[in-house]
Amino acid sequence: MIPTIKWEDNCIYIIDQRKLPRKKEWLVCQTLKDVITAIREMAIRGAPAIGVAAAMGLALGSQTIKTESYEIFRRRFLEMARQMKLARPTAANMRWAAERMIRVVEMMDDNNVEEIKRAVRKESQSILDRDIEINKKIGQNGLGFIPDKATILTHCNAGALATGGYGTALGVIRAAHEAGKDVHVIVDETRPLLQGIRLTAFELMEENIPVTVIVDSASGYLMQKKMIDLVITGADRIASNGDTANKIGSYQLAVLAKVNKIPFYVAAPLSTFDPDLKNGDLIPIEEREPKEVISFAGHLLGPEGVDAFNPAFDITPAKYISAIITERGILKPPYKGSIRALFGTDVK
Amino acid sequence: MIPTIKWEDNCIYIIDQRKLPRKKEWLVCQTLKDVITAIREMAIRGAPAIGVAAAMGLALGSQTIKTESYEIFRRRFLEMARQMKLARPTAANMRWAAERMIRVVEMMDDNNVEEIKRAVRKESQSILDRDIEINKKIGQNGLGFIPDKATILTHCNAGALATGGYGTALGVIRAAHEAGKDVHVIVDETRPLLQGIRLTAFELMEENIPVTVIVDSASGYLMQKKMIDLVITGADRIASNGDTANKIGSYQLAVLAKVNKIPFYVAAPLSTFDPDLKNGDLIPIEEREPKEVISFAGHLLGPEGVDAFNPAFDITPAKYISAIITERGILKPPYKGSIRALFGTDVK
Repeated sequence: MIPTIKWEDNCIYIIDQRKLPRKKEWLVCQTLKDVITAIREMAIRGAPAIGVAAAMGLALGSQTIKTESYEIFRRRFLEMARQMKLARPTAANMRWAAERMIRVVEMMDDNNVEEIKRAVRKESQSILDRDIEINKKIGQNGLGFIPDKATILTHCNAGALATGGYGTALGVIRAAHEAGKDVHVIVDETRPLLQGIRLTAFELMEENIPVTVIVDSASGYLMQKKMIDLVITGADRIASNGDTANKIGSYQLAVLAKVNKIPFYVAAPLSTFDPDLKNGDLIPIEEREPKEVISFAGHLLGPEGVDAFNPAFDITPAKYISAIITERGILKPPYKGSIRALFGTDVK
Repeated sequence: MIPTIKWEDNCIYIIDQRKLPRKKEWLVCQTLKDVITAIREMAIRGAPAIGVAAAMGLALGSQTIKTESYEIFRRRFLEMARQMKLARPTAANMRWAAERMIRVVEMMDDNNVEEIKRAVRKESQSILDRDIEINKKIGQNGLGFIPDKATILTHCNAGALATGGYGTALGVIRAAHEAGKDVHVIVDETRPLLQGIRLTAFELMEENIPVTVIVDSASGYLMQKKMIDLVITGADRIASNGDTANKIGSYQLAVLAKVNKIPFYVAAPLSTFDPDLKNGDLIPIEEREPKEVISFAGHLLGPEGVDAFNPAFDITPAKYISAIITERGILKPPYKGSIRALFGTDVK
């Protein structure tokens, strides 16, 4: 499995996912700004992975703060965290990671700046290492939903590349494969950036897990024809009532699964939850540039001057989600109760 | 408006739709085989358009039959019609056009072969001319469904290029625009062959009808966000109960429209109906080559050796269709009754 991101020689190495599967190329980030750009331009993507990148980016940024004053360090670190959180608005993990890093800084107000920098760096590494463990746990926890022989539809990439490693939705699929279950994955190509055909098909083929690609428009047909046993996706943010933001197209898969009586599962770590958010309507949906839709590899797909609208995510209402698989176990509807039980009673 | 197809100097000129909107290039067909290849490879596509092409192709083919014997002519013509019908299996219009041409031949069993060839040629031209009139009628008949200000979602291309001219679904949109209604069209790109962004956006922009492209995965989101007032598509075949085959992805749009309480209309000429077919399960669904999905403009989109499944159509069950707009008026549910009323009582 390719590592998604690593720290080496005081630089952050990111596998440039825009170039996969054609080229395996490391993008070397030497500054906080490099990391923010890599996230914004989706050299690295996937909610847990950009959480890790945010943490590492802040660790990298912190090293450039030239001061011995805790207060100055803290102020500049908070400003870096603010900038980082703006890189992409939808995924909860960005904010989660930034806030975890801030907590380290704020808890060390008695320490000298060099010690804080070391602690911050250590925390970012532990977020990465822990993410892989979490994914493996999610994989184990989801096993019970996978029949011994199953055709599984997934969307976009919620794999090793979308996380620190192993994957959330693909983590469950990997765990099922490792447990000897006979799984065949159908992945839709996931326009506009084709994460399904480029990244998910690539990851699964590397591990000899059977995979077939379809266009995004064909998923309903396959469900109608009873060719799909279950759907499983990742998530970018989950509100306190279970409404889930994920890659554009997830909502329609969930509706089609419901209509065709097929279970629809979401696999996500606790860092993807936003327990302060009442429901999905409050999740900001990133709109990306029209050029992602209207051109491909330098080819304009439509007429000169064609207009496009490019929302990057959508919201799947909780009522369409059969269960949410986390590292701490399975959440079942009604989610308001099960999420409150997990995060405490002050959930809105 | 570009003509989709024309007869000139004993050749059939087809606008090569694979190259639009980049290039406007005539493909010159000199033989029946050329026409069959053009249909199979989708240089011309759209159910009514390939009906016209089938008729013209048979007229062209008939001219090469060197005999004075009616029986030999008839036998060879039937063989040509059989080959033509195999070019693409889903659209009803192929068979409808071939059978209409056969009828001309069979009714002229007292005439000499040269007269029959002239009649066959005349019939093919009249199928083209009549198709344009039919589309204009469909446009007028659908007007009542279009509010004075409307955002309309359409899929694939059911426009001038999919017909002899003017279009079915786009015919209704054109008629609304000509009637002074304020229409804005949202079209999904329609992978794998991108007829939405390549052809529909092109046709609408040529006539200054506002159009915005989205990826196929975004249509549910727009419906959920109440950005769509109605959906209208064409059809490739309509069974006697109203079940409708159309471009892959139509089924999911219809389901999403229903769930979001948005009307879903089908616009199609009578030649698209297959009143002998009990329901949509009996409509053959063409599976096209995986390469349409996995590569684009010479670029392999996924990993080397990636597998793909590429059904070209799907079936929208009648219960998801609010009305079917034909040149003879509006069909409403229950379709079994309304279609029987149109085609006679011997409908299955």
